[in-house]
Amino acid sequence: MLNFDFYNKTKIFFGKDVELQAGSLCKATGAKVLLHYGGGSIKKSGLYDRIVKSLNDADVQFVELGGVQPNPRLSLVKEGIELCRKEKIGLILAVGGGSVADSAKAIGVGVEYAGDVWDFYMGKASPEKMLPVAVVLTIPAAGSEASPSSVISNEEAELKKGLTNIILRPEFSLLNPELTYTLPDYQTACGIADMLAHVMERYFTTTKGVELSDRLCESVMKTVIHQAYRVMQNPEDYTARAEIMWAGTIAHNDMIGCGRSQDWSSHGIEHEISAIYDVAHGAGLSVVFPAWMKHVYKSNVGRFARFAHEVFNVDYDFENPESTALQGIAELEQFFRDINLPVRLSDMDIDDTNIEKMASKVTDDGSHTIGGFKELTKSDIQNILNLALK
Amino acid sequence: MLNFDFYNKTKIFFGKDVELQAGSLCKATGAKVLLHYGGGSIKKSGLYDRIVKSLNDADVQFVELGGVQPNPRLSLVKEGIELCRKEKIGLILAVGGGSVADSAKAIGVGVEYAGDVWDFYMGKASPEKMLPVAVVLTIPAAGSEASPSSVISNEEAELKKGLTNIILRPEFSLLNPELTYTLPDYQTACGIADMLAHVMERYFTTTKGVELSDRLCESVMKTVIHQAYRVMQNPEDYTARAEIMWAGTIAHNDMIGCGRSQDWSSHGIEHEISAIYDVAHGAGLSVVFPAWMKHVYKSNVGRFARFAHEVFNVDYDFENPESTALQGIAELEQFFRDINLPVRLSDMDIDDTNIEKMASKVTDDGSHTIGGFKELTKSDIQNILNLALK
Repeated sequence: MLNFDFYNKTKIFFGKDVELQAGSLCKATGAKVLLHYGGGSIKKSGLYDRIVKSLNDADVQFVELGGVQPNPRLSLVKEGIELCRKEKIGLILAVGGGSVADSAKAIGVGVEYAGDVWDFYMGKASPEKMLPVAVVLTIPAAGSEASPSSVISNEEAELKKGLTNIILRPEFSLLNPELTYTLPDYQTACGIADMLAHVMERYFTTTKGVELSDRLCESVMKTVIHQAYRVMQNPEDYTARAEIMWAGTIAHNDMIGCGRSQDWSSHGIEHEISAIYDVAHGAGLSVVFPAWMKHVYKSNVGRFARFAHEVFNVDYDFENPESTALQGIAELEQFFRDINLPVRLSDMDIDDTNIEKMASKVTDDGSHTIGGFKELTKSDIQNILNLALK
Repeated sequence: MLNFDFYNKTKIFFGKDVELQAGSLCKATGAKVLLHYGGGSIKKSGLYDRIVKSLNDADVQFVELGGVQPNPRLSLVKEGIELCRKEKIGLILAVGGGSVADSAKAIGVGVEYAGDVWDFYMGKASPEKMLPVAVVLTIPAAGSEASPSSVISNEEAELKKGLTNIILRPEFSLLNPELTYTLPDYQTACGIADMLAHVMERYFTTTKGVELSDRLCESVMKTVIHQAYRVMQNPEDYTARAEIMWAGTIAHNDMIGCGRSQDWSSHGIEHEISAIYDVAHGAGLSVVFPAWMKHVYKSNVGRFARFAHEVFNVDYDFENPESTALQGIAELEQFFRDINLPVRLSDMDIDDTNIEKMASKVTDDGSHTIGGFKELTKSDIQNILNLALK
């Protein structure tokens, strides 16, 4: 096990009706609130009204900024920063999915910084402070409700970049599984792919002697896969919704990745796809991950065989472990197909036009490699995207 | 899944040499420190000298209070409270095992309270504030390094009582597995029994639909049992020591118990044994737990069969699940024997003299029941202790 630090200050309130505590929890901070959200779905579902009522009942002063899109935009972040400064906001309440939470975090670090907030995402500066962020989660996926991460798209530059820093963890998050009953199947499935990817990027490690976190990772993957079939059958299965929601938080709050090297190549490659094509992040991942696996599994056949056996109950072939490893990758692909996710770029009507461009962007023109389980050059990434093609 | 809140503010620093950060971390708080510890073992091992040097190098002002015993005493807690007040202490640095951490927490809440600190442990008052506590852990067992709990023995009253409150979580904890190399086998084994009990008391639930936390609990138990055999073979196996140490924290930081009813009967019954006989807590647990299981398994044979199958790889007997359940209990007993822990009261030279007294104390003279998986009356507890007798 590697040395590690772990610190997660986010207070979690989980279960039925917890969103009704938004007002009193905000009030307790004494701050003026920015209510930050996306499109119309929270208005249609009535959640917006319940949150506004909760804020009003608790006598919380607030202003609003809606309009966050999937793959949240830098332009709106900048608008939010100005608004927070002008209104002397002390807490950003993000109501929505990971995009809204990520946007809120970007605003939060931007407010506390004299320069351009995009500096943080380009690695040109490191944030030292964040205006407190709280989350009412409506889409279990990104894990942003307890993670130290935010991903923002710079639409002008066709760039999608992530920022990870311990100060980005929210103050508190309200997770009511019932709020996810009305998610379209496709969005539920994309969220499931995202949280599975968060676990797999921790699971495929080069660190030896990490039995506990191996097992914790396997527990989350098995649960998510099992409950995914249940929720696809019955979107109002509370238990399935609750298990998936809590799994999404645990998948990305770092607890299960402590002390192990990780490999975030698939997320990096996917960001290039969704930066250009604006596809759902989870859908990009269900395409990239199996291709990444096919490209790298020979680096550690044993680990992929374990994945197959422990997560998908594939019988271990003692005389041919490679076949077990490949069967695991096939099972993952089949799982994604079963929940109607794309597994090839062609399933999303993407051809090979931009493969070289995407491989170039993720390696800054081939100037560096990415990955840790296996180091990937620009040409490796082109190969992965070609494996993903059709 | 039940509604739940989860909040764990403890910063964890884990791995080789992390104790050398004690000075700088204490310094960052700006506080004058009470260095709190037990007997001579940290002096013999050189840890005391390293901590003192780290504090001095960082120019931290501190005073000392040693002498914490296993089953930490209320009398020393009261001494610590007086000392903290007199010296205007701002942070208690506990260097040792769970007893030292628990004693530090008791001092911490006592300092902030005008009344008798024992009120908190008797449920007569609830603490609102705790002087910050930090921990350098030397014995993985109690989980106190990240838990919201403290257990104190009132030697005059022959009472051992626990206090759980979210404010009791330490500020930070330093966990170096190498510090546990020199633990005697018996103490290592007692710690293992304690952390297993922390998981089992969460695992044996009446809550349905908790797949993720079931699996997380099983992951911790399997890892602890597997690594226990390794550490007994080679006490300086870093991986085994690290896995056990981290498992001990996760077993009791509440993450794996979120959203499920729990049953802390075995801890409650054990506290009565060690209050009278002053046996090691873990040894008391390895005696009580199997007896508790034999008394209650019929309440949910399926859960015990799952425990047997998932944790001990017992083949599931479809035509006779009860035999699977019983085999799991036998496997647990055998595991405790394998690591040289007692499994009967007679193994600790305890006879039936005080059985009625202990059953009476844990139920306040039979005035209430304990437990949740199965509600236990005074006579149930007498039965459990008789099952544990020989």
